[in-house]
Amino acid sequence: MSAARLIALDWGTSSLRAWRLGEGGKLLAQRQQPWGLMHLPEGGFEAALHGMAKGWLDDGVPLIAAGMVGSAQGWREVPYVDCPAGAEALAAGLLAADAGGGLKLHIVPGVRHARPDVMRGEETQCLGALALQPGLAEHSTLLLPGTHSKWLRVAQGRIVDFQTFMTGELYALLREHSILGRPALSAGETSSDDAFDRGVAAVRDAPLVGLSPLLFSARTLVLAGQLEAAHSLDYLSGLLIGEELRCALTQHDAAAPLRLIGDASLCARYRRALVPHGIHEAPTLEGATVAGLWQVALRAGLIEDAE
Amino acid sequence: MSAARLIALDWGTSSLRAWRLGEGGKLLAQRQQPWGLMHLPEGGFEAALHGMAKGWLDDGVPLIAAGMVGSAQGWREVPYVDCPAGAEALAAGLLAADAGGGLKLHIVPGVRHARPDVMRGEETQCLGALALQPGLAEHSTLLLPGTHSKWLRVAQGRIVDFQTFMTGELYALLREHSILGRPALSAGETSSDDAFDRGVAAVRDAPLVGLSPLLFSARTLVLAGQLEAAHSLDYLSGLLIGEELRCALTQHDAAAPLRLIGDASLCARYRRALVPHGIHEAPTLEGATVAGLWQVALRAGLIEDAE
Repeated sequence: MSAARLIALDWGTSSLRAWRLGEGGKLLAQRQQPWGLMHLPEGGFEAALHGMAKGWLDDGVPLIAAGMVGSAQGWREVPYVDCPAGAEALAAGLLAADAGGGLKLHIVPGVRHARPDVMRGEETQCLGALALQPGLAEHSTLLLPGTHSKWLRVAQGRIVDFQTFMTGELYALLREHSILGRPALSAGETSSDDAFDRGVAAVRDAPLVGLSPLLFSARTLVLAGQLEAAHSLDYLSGLLIGEELRCALTQHDAAAPLRLIGDASLCARYRRALVPHGIHEAPTLEGATVAGLWQVALRAGLIEDAE
Repeated sequence: MSAARLIALDWGTSSLRAWRLGEGGKLLAQRQQPWGLMHLPEGGFEAALHGMAKGWLDDGVPLIAAGMVGSAQGWREVPYVDCPAGAEALAAGLLAADAGGGLKLHIVPGVRHARPDVMRGEETQCLGALALQPGLAEHSTLLLPGTHSKWLRVAQGRIVDFQTFMTGELYALLREHSILGRPALSAGETSSDDAFDRGVAAVRDAPLVGLSPLLFSARTLVLAGQLEAAHSLDYLSGLLIGEELRCALTQHDAAAPLRLIGDASLCARYRRALVPHGIHEAPTLEGATVAGLWQVALRAGLIEDAE
């Protein structure tokens, strides 16, 4: 078995993923547990870490983590670094937390923007993306859809701007708790690309006002017999993702390549919604988190580049 | 005791109000119960109606109701009338439901717009407003804030257009269930007009994109120490109401008088948010529901105008 060079962790609110990485960042093994900040096992952060790294700890192998583990609700609060920020700043901002049993966990800082805005985890995925596709470093836009969707603008190898959209959280709230979700859930929701496309188009066709006057149409179209109740949540998803695109694209430089990072089916949904906005090339990047953790560890001197 | 000419009911999702009206619509008595569609007493609609009207039923006095009682989830579904709609159309669309014990309940139809959009109850308040202030009939805008806020455009005595904004429901969802509500609720929410004004201004100052990229700022401003957690729900309220105004006012004719109908403190909040949009006169109308029910009953010939 190859020796581990780095144990890398993506530690978020709802899950914990770990990778055992060998020479040159080669993946040796990986593990996943639902041990996010909200679902820690007995023994808390320390028990979770030791459980994840069990049997992986070759002598002196460093451990690094990114994500909400560095927030005020996490294990140790790591001060944000200011945007613009690149690998140097993130490496300089690493905080070494005592992880018990002689271990240290190096936690990557989040990034804040003066707007104000904040992120923890996405900055590391961004660095990973630039390492995987160096052509993105000069000028690009990264879209990381999710509960709190992030748009990152990259220039000269640094994150120069970013913005958060609560698209995923809004969808979940409206689905679970609003008058819009009930008819669909009781009708036995089924998937409809057409309904999704209609939602995207409705927002795009109202460029000045956007979502707000359209939201109720997820109900009234059903009442009017113009939309099946079972498809109304796809229509709602189209409205919400369409609104995110309408807003974010006002600031997007069409000359900058756009790349997606995240869950494959969610990325596919965003890609579909980008087409009516004239964007036909927005591939999903895989492996950005691991690559980013490797980059920060390298820059911080926790590991050495063998090449 | 004066004889009753009409028993008028406002029967919504969460409450039931009733008025005993004498000659010329004079208020003789009123009652209120939490017997909306979601909280009916034992015995259902019939028991609720008989309870509300107990002791009020002079011989042959007609009963009329507006609101969600006429919806698919109500007592009897009353088909919508199409917009544009005035008193004639609402009177013609009345449905007489058998209310047991020899009683009939006349239920006012809701109105639908081809957009599509729907309302039940607000059309009656609108007719009441026009009866109370005949100067509004020629050309006016009525704003009825609430869970589902409605904007009605009136011309030549009829509702010619209307639009629904889910402002109140969104606020409640974000307050109760989102990441934005938690810090404020645990900090012990206190009221702040300044925070509300900041939210209104933030949306107004972003005329092209509006709310979506600002929503997360209700959290990040707190994290950045620029907004007290206890005030963040007032800021959020400013964002949401500000967005409604930003959208609705794009279609508002500044020459049309604007009147508000609804809860006094909520109307005051909207009035405050209208000022930065240059609207300094938007008084609240009282008594529109009762006046509207009287108007429909009159037009339908259920009662006669004594004057």
